[in-house]
Amino acid sequence: MNKFWSESIRGLAPYVPGEQSNAADLIKLNTNENPYPPSPQVLSALRQAAGVDLRLYPDPDSFELKHAIRDVYGAPVEQIFVGNGSDEVLAHAFLGLLKHPLPILLPDITYSFYPVYCALYDIQYAKVPLDRDMQIRVDDYRQPNGGIIFANPNAPTGIGIALAEIRRLLDFNTDSVVIVDEAYIDFGGESALALIAEYPNLLVIQTLSKSRSLAGLRVGFALGQPGLIAALEQVKGCFNSYPLDRLANIGAAVALRDREYFERTRTQVINTREWLRAELEKLGFDVLPSQANFLFARHPQRDAAQLHKELRARNIMVRYFAKPRIDQFLRITVGTDDECRALITALRQIES
Amino acid sequence: MNKFWSESIRGLAPYVPGEQSNAADLIKLNTNENPYPPSPQVLSALRQAAGVDLRLYPDPDSFELKHAIRDVYGAPVEQIFVGNGSDEVLAHAFLGLLKHPLPILLPDITYSFYPVYCALYDIQYAKVPLDRDMQIRVDDYRQPNGGIIFANPNAPTGIGIALAEIRRLLDFNTDSVVIVDEAYIDFGGESALALIAEYPNLLVIQTLSKSRSLAGLRVGFALGQPGLIAALEQVKGCFNSYPLDRLANIGAAVALRDREYFERTRTQVINTREWLRAELEKLGFDVLPSQANFLFARHPQRDAAQLHKELRARNIMVRYFAKPRIDQFLRITVGTDDECRALITALRQIES
Repeated sequence: MNKFWSESIRGLAPYVPGEQSNAADLIKLNTNENPYPPSPQVLSALRQAAGVDLRLYPDPDSFELKHAIRDVYGAPVEQIFVGNGSDEVLAHAFLGLLKHPLPILLPDITYSFYPVYCALYDIQYAKVPLDRDMQIRVDDYRQPNGGIIFANPNAPTGIGIALAEIRRLLDFNTDSVVIVDEAYIDFGGESALALIAEYPNLLVIQTLSKSRSLAGLRVGFALGQPGLIAALEQVKGCFNSYPLDRLANIGAAVALRDREYFERTRTQVINTREWLRAELEKLGFDVLPSQANFLFARHPQRDAAQLHKELRARNIMVRYFAKPRIDQFLRITVGTDDECRALITALRQIES
Repeated sequence: MNKFWSESIRGLAPYVPGEQSNAADLIKLNTNENPYPPSPQVLSALRQAAGVDLRLYPDPDSFELKHAIRDVYGAPVEQIFVGNGSDEVLAHAFLGLLKHPLPILLPDITYSFYPVYCALYDIQYAKVPLDRDMQIRVDDYRQPNGGIIFANPNAPTGIGIALAEIRRLLDFNTDSVVIVDEAYIDFGGESALALIAEYPNLLVIQTLSKSRSLAGLRVGFALGQPGLIAALEQVKGCFNSYPLDRLANIGAAVALRDREYFERTRTQVINTREWLRAELEKLGFDVLPSQANFLFARHPQRDAAQLHKELRARNIMVRYFAKPRIDQFLRITVGTDDECRALITALRQIES
């Protein structure tokens, strides 16, 4: 820090993403990436698009991509916003829709980027504790607020919230925006997209990073009624006219349109998750019920930080958070069957 | 707009980018793209990178890309910041380095995104008029300020400012940040990179959109002393951990390393510019002296808005700004020799 920094950024503490590593032989179960590659159609389209047109700016309105989203989710284009990963979409949503006199509400345990956005844009927030079972209890949000945001399924717990509960929340909270971050929705949750037509204050955010195996391409999107989408477009237009490059636009559109590959790989992830969950329970772990592509698990007799370290020594990366309430948990991304078997084998070795 | 919008975004007026069009037979001289394709090495690297690793997040620190910049510009990695186009780099710089009690200074005629960032982040600014020859006069910036930003060469004038003048500005302005936006520097300007070691308040921003023919890939970067770069990293870390996707990281690194292609194509653009300038002058245009990949020209007897329209009717797009001081100018991107010949032919037809 030095005297040239703006006062407003001095106290900020950036979000810390999970470790990325290029080391070979590493089993990477720490950042909730999909263990399967992107659709072959996506790779083929990207190779074809890597041509002379890259000299030209991309379409600032991402026409093709928005039309792919429209066709897959049945929402008209004016209800669709796209961004450079769902993190950028979230950032714009915080600035454009959640900066109000009253504090916004978010769970005490959730995606830890939310409080970072609040600090960045000087938004007051109040943390609403998950209940004893680490679940979001909708009635706890029945209080004056400047907006509400949570992830469904929640992260890092993996626990989903029923659509009927979200509807109940929306019914008693009509005066501020409710944002549902559905980064992991395709692995078993109930999407709130079904409620958009009824609630003008509902914004749903999704990403292609997880269920479409495209974390490396950085594409996220939001759906909501046109009044909310226009706010995001307003912020985007004042920030970066072309947030999605030509390749990201094309790759994302093709990924969305390949529904067969999407169904096949997400089903595989769900199946492996259930197998892994059973195996972890056999080893004595408590595993939260997950609707995501990861499991959040603790072992009653084993220190999580220590387990994390011992797995790392065996070339297996999982995510550990040294934070209140969750510092005895490990967040384990669902990998391929082979990767998950290797994890179980390693845990057995550590135990013995 | 509706009641859910944050108060702070209600009055904003987004930047309006130049028109993008996919129409065939169009001669597109309106958004300062490079008429030559990206380096063949870039296209080949992108095709190779369009593989299974796209399921994984990109390197949040853009290690490979920063090392390419280091090797080409001789700056250590801690003096380098990269972003999703230079627009994102600019946005972070405004928020992180230009938000102070005193207003910042910028030319009255310059990149029209600057005032948009000011509005977005609630930064006060004062416009300093270009002189009668549309030049930046350094002495006009000798006044208390919260920061200074200008483009060199300036846009849309194309006029460059000498390095000695920038040094003089830095010498009398040591207490606030000076940002030089060098989007067009490779077409003949004198880069301020040479001054970074001496001035801890100097930030230089460049892009791969123009001289590296990669507008479609969205990569920009900034160089400055570590104290300034850390401010940009601070903002980035609170906004989006992975602003550059895997393909952008790789493509940009390869583009920077292919110096031979860069030299060849930028020289060609410069040569064509000088030819085009001479031809426009033969037709009676006043053409500002350009160090960029575009010309800013007016015709004493012809209305610019009308000319713009007549060219468009002939499938030639140039940029027209209906703004004070410049509403009789056209901004003409330097295209291929063929494109520029077609422009001259069309102007001759319009004249007769």
